[in-house]
Amino acid sequence: MSSVMQKLLTPVASGPAEPPRNKVTVVGVGMVGMACAVSVLLRLKYLCNVFMFYFTPAKYYAVTANSRIVVVSAGVRQQEGESRLNLVQRNVNIFKHIIPQIVKHSPNCTLIVVSNPVDVLTYVTWKLSGLPKHRVIGSGTNLDSARFRFLMAERLGIHASSFNGWVLGEHGDTSVPVWSGVNVAGVNLQKLNPEFGLDGDKEDWKATHKAVVDSAYEVIKLKGYTNWAIGLSVADLTESIIKNMSRIHPVSTMVKDMYGIGEEVFLSLPCVLNSNGVGSVINMTLTDAEVGQLKKSADTLWGIQKDLKDI
Amino acid sequence: MSSVMQKLLTPVASGPAEPPRNKVTVVGVGMVGMACAVSVLLRLKYLCNVFMFYFTPAKYYAVTANSRIVVVSAGVRQQEGESRLNLVQRNVNIFKHIIPQIVKHSPNCTLIVVSNPVDVLTYVTWKLSGLPKHRVIGSGTNLDSARFRFLMAERLGIHASSFNGWVLGEHGDTSVPVWSGVNVAGVNLQKLNPEFGLDGDKEDWKATHKAVVDSAYEVIKLKGYTNWAIGLSVADLTESIIKNMSRIHPVSTMVKDMYGIGEEVFLSLPCVLNSNGVGSVINMTLTDAEVGQLKKSADTLWGIQKDLKDI
Amino acid sequence: MSSVMQKLLTPVASGPAEPPRNKVTVVGVGMVGMACAVSVLLRLKYLCNVFMFYFTPAKYYAVTANSRIVVVSAGVRQQEGESRLNLVQRNVNIFKHIIPQIVKHSPNCTLIVVSNPVDVLTYVTWKLSGLPKHRVIGSGTNLDSARFRFLMAERLGIHASSFNGWVLGEHGDTSVPVWSGVNVAGVNLQKLNPEFGLDGDKEDWKATHKAVVDSAYEVIKLKGYTNWAIGLSVADLTESIIKNMSRIHPVSTMVKDMYGIGEEVFLSLPCVLNSNGVGSVINMTLTDAEVGQLKKSADTLWGIQKDLKDI
Amino acid sequence: MSSVMQKLLTPVASGPAEPPRNKVTVVGVGMVGMACAVSVLLRLKYLCNVFMFYFTPAKYYAVTANSRIVVVSAGVRQQEGESRLNLVQRNVNIFKHIIPQIVKHSPNCTLIVVSNPVDVLTYVTWKLSGLPKHRVIGSGTNLDSARFRFLMAERLGIHASSFNGWVLGEHGDTSVPVWSGVNVAGVNLQKLNPEFGLDGDKEDWKATHKAVVDSAYEVIKLKGYTNWAIGLSVADLTESIIKNMSRIHPVSTMVKDMYGIGEEVFLSLPCVLNSNGVGSVINMTLTDAEVGQLKKSADTLWGIQKDLKDI
Repeated sequence: MSSVMQKLLTPVASGPAEPPRNKVTVVGVGMVGMACAVSVLLRLKYLCNVFMFYFTPAKYYAVTANSRIVVVSAGVRQQEGESRLNLVQRNVNIFKHIIPQIVKHSPNCTLIVVSNPVDVLTYVTWKLSGLPKHRVIGSGTNLDSARFRFLMAERLGIHASSFNGWVLGEHGDTSVPVWSGVNVAGVNLQKLNPEFGLDGDKEDWKATHKAVVDSAYEVIKLKGYTNWAIGLSVADLTESIIKNMSRIHPVSTMVKDMYGIGEEVFLSLPCVLNSNGVGSVINMTLTDAEVGQLKKSADTLWGIQKDLKDI
Repeated sequence: MSSVMQKLLTPVASGPAEPPRNKVTVVGVGMVGMACAVSVLLRLKYLCNVFMFYFTPAKYYAVTANSRIVVVSAGVRQQEGESRLNLVQRNVNIFKHIIPQIVKHSPNCTLIVVSNPVDVLTYVTWKLSGLPKHRVIGSGTNLDSARFRFLMAERLGIHASSFNGWVLGEHGDTSVPVWSGVNVAGVNLQKLNPEFGLDGDKEDWKATHKAVVDSAYEVIKLKGYTNWAIGLSVADLTESIIKNMSRIHPVSTMVKDMYGIGEEVFLSLPCVLNSNGVGSVINMTLTDAEVGQLKKSADTLWGIQKDLKDI
Repeated sequence: MSSVMQKLLTPVASGPAEPPRNKVTVVGVGMVGMACAVSVLLRLKYLCNVFMFYFTPAKYYAVTANSRIVVVSAGVRQQEGESRLNLVQRNVNIFKHIIPQIVKHSPNCTLIVVSNPVDVLTYVTWKLSGLPKHRVIGSGTNLDSARFRFLMAERLGIHASSFNGWVLGEHGDTSVPVWSGVNVAGVNLQKLNPEFGLDGDKEDWKATHKAVVDSAYEVIKLKGYTNWAIGLSVADLTESIIKNMSRIHPVSTMVKDMYGIGEEVFLSLPCVLNSNGVGSVINMTLTDAEVGQLKKSADTLWGIQKDLKDI
Repeated sequence: MSSVMQKLLTPVASGPAEPPRNKVTVVGVGMVGMACAVSVLLRLKYLCNVFMFYFTPAKYYAVTANSRIVVVSAGVRQQEGESRLNLVQRNVNIFKHIIPQIVKHSPNCTLIVVSNPVDVLTYVTWKLSGLPKHRVIGSGTNLDSARFRFLMAERLGIHASSFNGWVLGEHGDTSVPVWSGVNVAGVNLQKLNPEFGLDGDKEDWKATHKAVVDSAYEVIKLKGYTNWAIGLSVADLTESIIKNMSRIHPVSTMVKDMYGIGEEVFLSLPCVLNSNGVGSVINMTLTDAEVGQLKKSADTLWGIQKDLKDI
């Protein structure tokens, strides 16, 4: 006797439908991972299948196979008052188990690292993965830049998408707002006031960047973690890669041999993101002070990285 | 000396970015084709590349190569007062040149036929293409059903997406509204009033179906052609296929051996559309009168098809 | 000396821009409230300003003034293994403080109650608010229905939006799937198999409804709370109200004098939601067994409600 | 005996639902008007009701009453090879009948003028309307800028939304690309190559602006009119106003007393658009050559405007 389904449907196509979707795996099932997964799912409905994955014995990694993008949000969380750099040692050991397994099962994936301290852990991920540098990205200052644009635009009474400003370098306390390039409709704001964003500025625009840096600490104090903004930020990066858009985002990328930096460190620069991962990096025209800040961050990061073992 | 582009960008990825987009080709550059192209483009931005293409000497068809979906809107247009069936002979000869070239360059495409009379021309396309029946679809009564739902829902004071009603069979004057299945939240309206939609119905709900049939003629009188509604309708079908959604749409499909129909004719039935094209057809529970209407349409269509030459 | 802003912008319009946005307040800052707030924000960007609000001394409620919609997610959470009905007493006392203050500051708002046990607490909210019944809604079985459609459609191999099925009555363990109205493209599945969904059914479709009931408990066991699905569900309801869509949703509404229910209880029925809140309720054609289940739920709920004090 | 509707629905809310939608009226039913109407409808679904309206005897204008935005696309069309300025006299007489009637029935509307020559006709509309200058906008170079960004970004291999360039001044042949402000991620391209965009530039970036100017003529030659791009452009402007977004768009606004322009002419400058219409204008930092081009356009426009009668 035939089933309800047999009575309801007459099959026409012979084979199974092949899903043309991209597989996105989020490693880490904490608050940040969940926010990343939900944000990607809502943004790229029908374009991606999103899986969350908890790091476990090696034999289970097969479920992550053939991922197009892997978001790495695993790791121990920043504590109240803890600097991002202090987290590093606790997280490296975890990554030594995760990353090789991920790459073994998805050799063609692009990795987006979210765990903090993000710049060091993106370096660690790159070394552990053996992937070319254009396929390992840290979420970096994409979020810092979004917050900077929001606060600056609000102060000027315009929409954030009409404000062009970039926060680069190291994610967190020592990030670098590129005041020399800030513009609205192509009007450079330092041409209107040469002190704009600098120390002597009577209007104290620098305070807005300080508010960006402080906002993470504020959120952590308030609810114990910071996850929604980073989720939406990761959805942006994923969208540019999956849709091959070539939009420019400030993300953490390998900066050796740029701005006089001699070591293999990852810092955020504006990157063209497409289906290759990082298609190219924008060569910023920076002031000496801005280059100095980048170099100082590079030195700090290398100071940590050089002592790491087993990577 | 380096160019602006060389100064601006440092390449990172070695190869070119591979666009993961689906190619959608619209054959026919009239008002209907343009509306289809724009509607698909706006609905499926970044998912599809849409090309319009005018039928020309065979040597130019290479530009349509490797299309995922080909929308066939070519053909001469319905004149004011002309029945859809009268158009057929003028269009068959055009299709004899187009379809084989399309399939030669895109052997794995799914064809969506829009040109009128759509049911006959979908049959013609299927025969000329040599493709399996699940990959040749006529836009059929997808549009009639959308108009029916809109007008019925408006009369009930609810949103069209909350009204479940289906117009099947032949696109145009003899389309069949399945009154026996019309329901709102699962409440069958014929259970509330057994005459609902029938001839004796004092509330004259049948008038709403008549308004659907008349609407095409009204629009043609007013502006000389009907294009926007069909454009949005084609975008719906394309979305279900490209995104492998398995949504059910009333589209023209091969109905031989269903409802006692013995000939190879295409009529609209609810079809599950996914990446295969037609995944399956819903077996409707129809009244004798409704089956009679389908058979009558099938006879009419076969009466035309059997005399066609060279297909 | 003029500021950067004065140098950058020449004012044109004299007065301030008036935001035409709707104010949505989410009361309760737990996981469920956060998921509701984020979901509404992402769905109705630029249409709503969303505020989260923690219940506090009466003097602070002024910040909720003139809300268009207030989502009530406050309350103590369901514990593992705790039935929804056991929660009621712990939550009534909280609502006695919240609801009058909300209505005092937003006398024209529509209230959407999310806290569990949702049907009793929607009744409690209605009594405490003094609002007409069309402006107090419980999220009810909107979520149960969404899960039911997803699981049923998956089993049939079609898209959830093409499956018409409704789960009504009490949210939770004793919810009522209306098997007699389940249809696909207007094809009633009980006509295909009279036992469809009933106890004797060899294909055991009833198991799918059991899976819906169990899913909340599963999620709670797994991560300690259930929030994302309810967030998306609330975004649906809010969208229908804010955009005046007249879509039909199964939500908890006052059912006295329907189906022989004599007391003031709230149960989910399909409701037309528009800018008025509940515009009308669909009169379901239910079997005697289905009516019996509704009445039994009504008795259970009234058994609790009649002993509540101070409302 | 009760009707199907009475049997199906139990009314709950007492009064009618009030639609919170904005009324957008498109005056002119040609290709451009239709493209504007469809584009606004698809972009702002549920936010706007869109009406098309053909200019007729005064007694029919009541149907446009209480519009929030009125798009003026009426007028005779540019002929192949005809300069935009030659169109003016044929259109002024039409506007003398339309504009006062529109404003009489919608005294609080914002007018968006699309008809060509757009800058002169925006001036004409402003004078005939008696409205403050912030509520009369010409679509101006919003479209030229979109095309410029698309072509420039394509040449650089990046996404158009990541390219910051502005075409200002008079819409059409003498529009002014502000090469001095063109930047990518804040990097000024003239700093990379001082000749960028200028006459001596060996890379001939100027050719891209010429392609923008030529594109309208190309499209007109090809299909007899240019409508889709302008439709999407008008949808952008309408969205910024209806949603009170304060995004910056290059639109035609009254420029008397800016850049040494002494007469009442309308030219495109970057404008902050919100619910007020033009909230403010960006003060561009232009080179002497760029200012010279703006002044020359102003002189040309005034040369026409000063001889117009009856406005």
